Amino acid sequence: MTHRRSITGFSNPLVKFLRSLRDKKHRKREGKFIAEGLRLLTDARLSGLLPEMLVMSSGREDHPLLDELERAVSDAGGDVIEMSEDVLAKVTGKENPQAVAGVFAEFDTALASLDRNAAPIWLVAHAMRDPGNLGTMLRTGDAVGAGGLILLDDCADPFSVQSVRASMGAIFTQRIARASWSEFIAWLRAGEGQLVAASLRDATDYRSAPYRAPCFLLVGNESQGLPQALEDACDLRVTIPMRGRADSLNAAIAGAVLAYEALAALTPPPRTK
Amino acid sequence: MTHRRSITGFSNPLVKFLRSLRDKKHRKREGKFIAEGLRLLTDARLSGLLPEMLVMSSGREDHPLLDELERAVSDAGGDVIEMSEDVLAKVTGKENPQAVAGVFAEFDTALASLDRNAAPIWLVAHAMRDPGNLGTMLRTGDAVGAGGLILLDDCADPFSVQSVRASMGAIFTQRIARASWSEFIAWLRAGEGQLVAASLRDATDYRSAPYRAPCFLLVGNESQGLPQALEDACDLRVTIPMRGRADSLNAAIAGAVLAYEALAALTPPPRTK
Repeated sequence: MTHRRSITGFSNPLVKFLRSLRDKKHRKREGKFIAEGLRLLTDARLSGLLPEMLVMSSGREDHPLLDELERAVSDAGGDVIEMSEDVLAKVTGKENPQAVAGVFAEFDTALASLDRNAAPIWLVAHAMRDPGNLGTMLRTGDAVGAGGLILLDDCADPFSVQSVRASMGAIFTQRIARASWSEFIAWLRAGEGQLVAASLRDATDYRSAPYRAPCFLLVGNESQGLPQALEDACDLRVTIPMRGRADSLNAAIAGAVLAYEALAALTPPPRTK
Repeated sequence: MTHRRSITGFSNPLVKFLRSLRDKKHRKREGKFIAEGLRLLTDARLSGLLPEMLVMSSGREDHPLLDELERAVSDAGGDVIEMSEDVLAKVTGKENPQAVAGVFAEFDTALASLDRNAAPIWLVAHAMRDPGNLGTMLRTGDAVGAGGLILLDDCADPFSVQSVRASMGAIFTQRIARASWSEFIAWLRAGEGQLVAASLRDATDYRSAPYRAPCFLLVGNESQGLPQALEDACDLRVTIPMRGRADSLNAAIAGAVLAYEALAALTPPPRTK
């Protein structure tokens, strides 16, 4: 049995602090973010990451994974806080809150800390504004065995509640880097790496394109796509077929279609004929 | 110059009617839905569909496509309504509303009205709860030249504002059908059609699976996936590689990866070698 603190009031300073982490400005100032749910927190623990603070609903059901989590946080010197269900709902801003949430320190997002040869595929998003799309890109990156997601220029915050939720735990397994386009292209060209984007012009069929590892798959803004200068800087422009009236896919979908194609090209599966 | 009505007050019955269409219950009762934005409405017009009512902000900028749209709606006997920007914002529920919106009659969504041989690929969603995912599935369907999206059991409403938005116009180009699982499987088995789902067990690599047209790609609920009985009823179960910690993709992403694979298998592109 570990030591727990209990909190009941909505006006408690800790409750205010936790609520403030739903706001980008406060997350940035504090360097912390919130992840909710036993599954997500267990993913984090299995990836070697523990929350600095574990917040549990007093109405939660017992679960062996929750016991393990509580013990691990406590052993590591973290805080374990208990609060009523309605206070926790205020913190997470959901009508049916998960019974548990954790506060984590934001990760190092310096480009220089990435080892580009750690994975054959990296996802790169330029000015992606939708946090749900960012989280989905992280989840797809985990699925294809990508190294991480590199966020260029004015992207949404990967540590937002929506992004963390949509990542389904990949926030803890994928590396995340943030940089300007000019910082990124300078870093990329200082080593190995093929920059690839989907494009409608001067492009190779995405099914037969010569992908090379480490392969950096660049996806653009949801409504504007990629600026032409960024397309021009790519080593490879590939075309995804468009058989209907529209000329583009959802940005996270386009990234996933490219990522699975690159995965197949870079690690061909054994085929039976 | 066509005849226009002007509306200024928030309490006007028409404004209340339009606002009510943001609610599923009211959409269903009225059999109408709202689509916003000149681009979307122009997509509809080019697909042969006109709104019964066109609503424009009095602060809009002139645009030749808007003139054409207004003339077409008026010629077809539809209503053209002008309202102030703040009233239109109330109607569409956005801070930065599009300058124009249209009210459409919901389409026939009877399974029996589909011609299964009209397209090589059909997307099928079971209990998909996220309207954004539904809209993204429609958009992906348009891109791969699918015939439409079939919604089984307890899905989100494809005519919701979020779904229509996420579809980026595909709501007007893709057929939409709604049915229970038992109705669907009876209809499917009464004719040609291969039912395919992503699965983790007893499955073929999705890159070398024998897709056959008309190919029905079945995607499950966002958190539960597909019930085993539905997987068992499939003609083909395929595996999408999972190289990370997670064992699933976002539902709309999984659907898109399968759809692009089926597209390539069913309509192989010319390859130079």
